[in-house]
Amino acid sequence: MRPEEVENLTLLSDYYEFTMGNGYHEAGYDDTIGYFDLYYRTVPDSGGFAIAAGLEQLIEYIQNLHFTEEDLTFLQEKGIFSDSFLDYLRNFQFSCDVWAMPEGTVVFPNEPLVVVRGPIIQAQLIETMALLLINHQSLIATKANRMVRASEGRIVMEFGARRAHGSSAATLGARAAYIGGVAGSSNTLTDKRYGVPALGTMAHSWVQLFPTEYDAFHAYASIYPDSCILLVDTYDTLRSGIPNAIRVFDEVVTKKGFRPKGIRLDSGDIAYLSKEARKMLDEAGYADCPIAASSGLDEFIIRHLIQEGAEVDSFGVGERLITSRSNPVFGGVYKLVAVEQNGEYIPKIKISANVEKITTPGFKNVIRIYDPNTNKARADLLTEFHEEIPDNEPLEIFHPMFTWKRKTFHEFTLRKLLVPVFEKGKLVYDIPSIEQTREYCQQEVDSLWEEVKRFDNPHEYIVDLSISLWRIKDQLLHSM
Amino acid sequence: MRPEEVENLTLLSDYYEFTMGNGYHEAGYDDTIGYFDLYYRTVPDSGGFAIAAGLEQLIEYIQNLHFTEEDLTFLQEKGIFSDSFLDYLRNFQFSCDVWAMPEGTVVFPNEPLVVVRGPIIQAQLIETMALLLINHQSLIATKANRMVRASEGRIVMEFGARRAHGSSAATLGARAAYIGGVAGSSNTLTDKRYGVPALGTMAHSWVQLFPTEYDAFHAYASIYPDSCILLVDTYDTLRSGIPNAIRVFDEVVTKKGFRPKGIRLDSGDIAYLSKEARKMLDEAGYADCPIAASSGLDEFIIRHLIQEGAEVDSFGVGERLITSRSNPVFGGVYKLVAVEQNGEYIPKIKISANVEKITTPGFKNVIRIYDPNTNKARADLLTEFHEEIPDNEPLEIFHPMFTWKRKTFHEFTLRKLLVPVFEKGKLVYDIPSIEQTREYCQQEVDSLWEEVKRFDNPHEYIVDLSISLWRIKDQLLHSM
Repeated sequence: MRPEEVENLTLLSDYYEFTMGNGYHEAGYDDTIGYFDLYYRTVPDSGGFAIAAGLEQLIEYIQNLHFTEEDLTFLQEKGIFSDSFLDYLRNFQFSCDVWAMPEGTVVFPNEPLVVVRGPIIQAQLIETMALLLINHQSLIATKANRMVRASEGRIVMEFGARRAHGSSAATLGARAAYIGGVAGSSNTLTDKRYGVPALGTMAHSWVQLFPTEYDAFHAYASIYPDSCILLVDTYDTLRSGIPNAIRVFDEVVTKKGFRPKGIRLDSGDIAYLSKEARKMLDEAGYADCPIAASSGLDEFIIRHLIQEGAEVDSFGVGERLITSRSNPVFGGVYKLVAVEQNGEYIPKIKISANVEKITTPGFKNVIRIYDPNTNKARADLLTEFHEEIPDNEPLEIFHPMFTWKRKTFHEFTLRKLLVPVFEKGKLVYDIPSIEQTREYCQQEVDSLWEEVKRFDNPHEYIVDLSISLWRIKDQLLHSM
Repeated sequence: MRPEEVENLTLLSDYYEFTMGNGYHEAGYDDTIGYFDLYYRTVPDSGGFAIAAGLEQLIEYIQNLHFTEEDLTFLQEKGIFSDSFLDYLRNFQFSCDVWAMPEGTVVFPNEPLVVVRGPIIQAQLIETMALLLINHQSLIATKANRMVRASEGRIVMEFGARRAHGSSAATLGARAAYIGGVAGSSNTLTDKRYGVPALGTMAHSWVQLFPTEYDAFHAYASIYPDSCILLVDTYDTLRSGIPNAIRVFDEVVTKKGFRPKGIRLDSGDIAYLSKEARKMLDEAGYADCPIAASSGLDEFIIRHLIQEGAEVDSFGVGERLITSRSNPVFGGVYKLVAVEQNGEYIPKIKISANVEKITTPGFKNVIRIYDPNTNKARADLLTEFHEEIPDNEPLEIFHPMFTWKRKTFHEFTLRKLLVPVFEKGKLVYDIPSIEQTREYCQQEVDSLWEEVKRFDNPHEYIVDLSISLWRIKDQLLHSM
């Protein structure tokens, strides 16, 4: 996006970030360094993995962080912030280090997607937007990829803008869906801003406006003979829609020297109607005319339709993708994992009665272990950030809770997943193009074994802790 | 919102609005008038009613509609739009009439929340954003109102920004939640832009950062003695959190002459912990100290907690409100119901194999029938727009499908729900303040009988057609 189009969202932060910020400032903690991990706990839709997305927008947000005089007046009128803190905000200069997984990376529960290290007031301030942006786009990229996998090579198109939760949900949701593998979106703005191909032809209103369905198709085909996709379900799909479409393909499209680009079914039983439509089109000499289907689709229905032999070449998905309807929450959290005060580094833990909610302390990286013969991912290891795992000796990993569950790798390659994004507030990351990100996402998903990609009851991918990290956690747990 | 903060979302429109627009233009339909109804078909969460919201943003969007040269270049490069159509867009001037239900109005399925009448290209272009804005905010206002009703007079606070689907979902979602009755939001930007009170005190990270929980509470209370709410679940709620809070209330808050403003529980069994907390606070002399609870709450859990006797004074709700998790789609649609060509008005219908999906044709209004003794709403009647229902004779209404189901009102008052918003593109509506809208919403909900407000299996409120409107529909159905 062009810089002038980036909205200033500095105040889109939970109010407690400001009350805490003022508190840290008043308590003399300006120079205290906090380390935060942004991670999620469970895969949406009980799937086997998620796809990280939203980093580009997080970068834009951070680069644009600043308080206008109007913002400061607004805060000042709250009557609880010190003048000194307001001055701090007036001169706000983001100076944190940020590491993140590139967009499109396959990510598992409890792995940091983003790590922030910096002055506690700053690192705290960006919590809300960091979560919001990464949660939202990771949710939609993950859902889109499920639908794309369900379609088994057929085209999936994103049509959900009208049911999105606001304008950024529509536009950035379509962007995330494209990263996850859809072919394009109905949202024109996402094309202009992000280069996601805009798709779409006609609504029922087009067909209704003309005196007859035939007139409507004829008019459309006359204007768009070379990109003619006709919506055939306004009145009666088999008795009126498809016969009229064929007539117009004969009388207009082929006469002008083109081939029809498709028909679209938007209601009724898609399996039955698509098979009948296929027969009718084939018999009329349009075996090359694709059939598109829309109307309440998601990965489950797409899979069923394919199993039933539906003759569908492309699927338009709406509300069930753009809201991730069956699971509309990506539960990312942002947790303090260490502090640094007067040069001393102190790992921090958050205890919970719920064992899964206990945090893993410390500044860390994520290392993915690959089988060098298949290039498939075998397991991930959370390590201390500067820890190097030797790759010239067997590598034994163990389950962090059931420590007798062990696995040894003899042949393997390693890859660090977190890459530097900001260094002391300066952007050091080259943002890839959306096409590169989309391709990378495809490679990432290809690196998984089929059993991890299963929709129902997938194999749980191994995410362990290095011995060193495990010891830090174990000691903190015992000392509590 | 200040005009310069309103983003230009002219291209946030489904691509087919442009292909159709160009088609209408090329086919000579520039002056054809279309009538569109925006309505929904089923109440989210199987509830008895929904709350209309989002109109203020729809007005802003429409007032800001314009194509920049950059937008036009983008469209031109698609290679399918005529120069003449691009000129039409260059000189785009919105000139439609728009009617709408004021925000906060209680609305039932199949009733138009918005009616648009104007040149077909224009009326079509705003479809995507009109749906997106009204769908999103109506969804959240409706969900918020369910939570507020479940809380039976206790305070409900919106804390969901971090799980929202993008920035506008967070900010406008919080706005809609406020209309629906929450007391405020954690989102600071929603306070600045819309005056929704910003709420919040501290996160777990505040408690973790200090050497001990006591130190953390002490520091917070020293800075905010008069607005001190302490988060007590970072380590152990009953053994550490509450005793430390009481100690700090004694040593800092009361010593400085204030009363504590609360404690917050964010994990564990809220019913049990809140009762224990109440006892401990009461015994320590803090019977006036409120208890706030958060963590995975929605209307169902709030209701259960109250039934179990939880001692909670305010509920902080997050992801389950801001995403309307149990039902994240408000299924509004935008349908052509009539056209006007060369002065002739022609009602239009859209047939479907699914009877509920057949549209009701014609330019219409919604009339609510009240009992003058109780001021409770009895039924709604869709009428032709200019139709006047006499209020000095008994009024008989009938079910539009099962026409033998009839009801006669002898004493009643009538109210038209759709009000003029734009006349030939000019704003003629005074946008109420958000406080007025919130209060109006409360009155609207109060005008319903309890059985319509039931969460499970509510009474189905009557929405019938006037005889005149019913005849138009019946004739069109028979002629198909």
